Amino acid sequence: LIDDRSPIGVFDSGVGGLTVLRALRAALPERRFIYLGDTARLPYGTKSPESVARYSLQCAEALVARGIGCLVVACNTASASALGALRSRYAQIPVIGVIEPGAAAALAASRSGHVAVIGTEGTIGGGAYQRALLRLEPKVRVTSQACSLFVAMAEEGWVDGPIAEAVARRYLDPIFSAADTLDGAPYGGPYGDPDTLVLGCTHFPVLARAIRAVLPAGVTIVDSAASVAAVVAREAAMSSAAATPIGVAVPGSLRARGHVQWLATDGAQRFARVSAVFLGAALHADEIEIIDL
Amino acid sequence: LIDDRSPIGVFDSGVGGLTVLRALRAALPERRFIYLGDTARLPYGTKSPESVARYSLQCAEALVARGIGCLVVACNTASASALGALRSRYAQIPVIGVIEPGAAAALAASRSGHVAVIGTEGTIGGGAYQRALLRLEPKVRVTSQACSLFVAMAEEGWVDGPIAEAVARRYLDPIFSAADTLDGAPYGGPYGDPDTLVLGCTHFPVLARAIRAVLPAGVTIVDSAASVAAVVAREAAMSSAAATPIGVAVPGSLRARGHVQWLATDGAQRFARVSAVFLGAALHADEIEIIDL
Repeated sequence: LIDDRSPIGVFDSGVGGLTVLRALRAALPERRFIYLGDTARLPYGTKSPESVARYSLQCAEALVARGIGCLVVACNTASASALGALRSRYAQIPVIGVIEPGAAAALAASRSGHVAVIGTEGTIGGGAYQRALLRLEPKVRVTSQACSLFVAMAEEGWVDGPIAEAVARRYLDPIFSAADTLDGAPYGGPYGDPDTLVLGCTHFPVLARAIRAVLPAGVTIVDSAASVAAVVAREAAMSSAAATPIGVAVPGSLRARGHVQWLATDGAQRFARVSAVFLGAALHADEIEIIDL
Repeated sequence: LIDDRSPIGVFDSGVGGLTVLRALRAALPERRFIYLGDTARLPYGTKSPESVARYSLQCAEALVARGIGCLVVACNTASASALGALRSRYAQIPVIGVIEPGAAAALAASRSGHVAVIGTEGTIGGGAYQRALLRLEPKVRVTSQACSLFVAMAEEGWVDGPIAEAVARRYLDPIFSAADTLDGAPYGGPYGDPDTLVLGCTHFPVLARAIRAVLPAGVTIVDSAASVAAVVAREAAMSSAAATPIGVAVPGSLRARGHVQWLATDGAQRFARVSAVFLGAALHADEIEIIDL
């Protein structure tokens, strides 16, 4: 159950998780959030699973100490490497990662049973999406591709235009090469091209337009940020129903609707600047508290 | 003085410093080296100067504990943020960074007195090259540009071809826009376009071909890896002359000519794979010792 008076804690290695936060705020506009970007140690995607798990536990500890009622692991690498450890240590609150919701949304979207997943080297190399998809649907076929340059492009703000599309084409053409279009082609068998693409990195939703531009028509893009927000919103709704509040109204001013407390482990200036691409709104460096983990 | 029986220690946040190591091995084929990539905490380029200085001192400590006779800071960000602290703490050995040699080489190459510098956000934002150039030549004009995507491209091995050139053009055209060619144009004044480009990040030398392809003819590329190797070789030669060895020949087998001991703080597999782009030769993961800092 998600205590609806406590803020929801969200962490990522940096700014990528802001796409998840943005989706969460849209789905749950009444809630307060605490966002932690572990910018001193980004990126997680190239680090070993052991290091990522250790860092994740430290991030979670900082958020739990600030009284969160739910933890969202808004980082695919951390979700892949640390979700089990986080759920064991913080059994008192819901801990939600980005991989399971994305995998479930992909299976719901796919008609052919062939799903493509793109992410960082760490996420793809670790095989977490592949395992999550197979666990939910043993007959699914999965094609995966690490797209390391997408992270740097997103942070540089080069999110569309010829360079973004050329990079997207270089990564994605080999996956979707056989199909110019899915609509007219004989399609739907387990050996056809994938008809669903999971954006398995929280940075990637900001590149969705460039990615869309190079995909065959008819491929569904699954944004794991939107998928995780939907899961959290569903859990929150169930919790509210279960809690059956008996007239103890919390004043609006105290609830501070939609308020976000910003935490980072390094580089407030850069965090504020780069976050604009991900949040779609400017953030000031002095709104960000720098903490040591 | 550089003790010529001790290995030369070289560190970087990751694999970029391998361009410096490669230049050092070419300049000093008799020497042994210890290379440390602080891969658990890469990249330094987006981190605060305080964090970079702290990490650099830890890297240096690990190398000094292994008996190095000279420390090469093969990372522009670390050279910018930590050289003073390293020289204070390890006054007993020469500590050589990449910024001063690159700046000196750029001034020697430039006829116009206008030098362009490219690097990571941290290096360019910190202004270290700008300061080093002005300290050596107060009348120099400096234009600088952060090229964040170059690091990811180098590590992905996308070092030439249309995407590398398109990215290089997007970063460099604004700097060199006015000059189609330097040869025929009225050139040489302090207000002309730069005639020298410093590759102020150890990753960038592997992209030299793509960078060259988009530069106006006549621009000199200064590779700071080659510049630092030249400085170390000169210091080593002076040290050997000063030491005047009196017949104590060290057997070749013991000197282990050109041997490199490899250290990293995380991810031996990835280090080995990506290093091939930088070293021009394959490295095996089991040759790399993982250490904790």
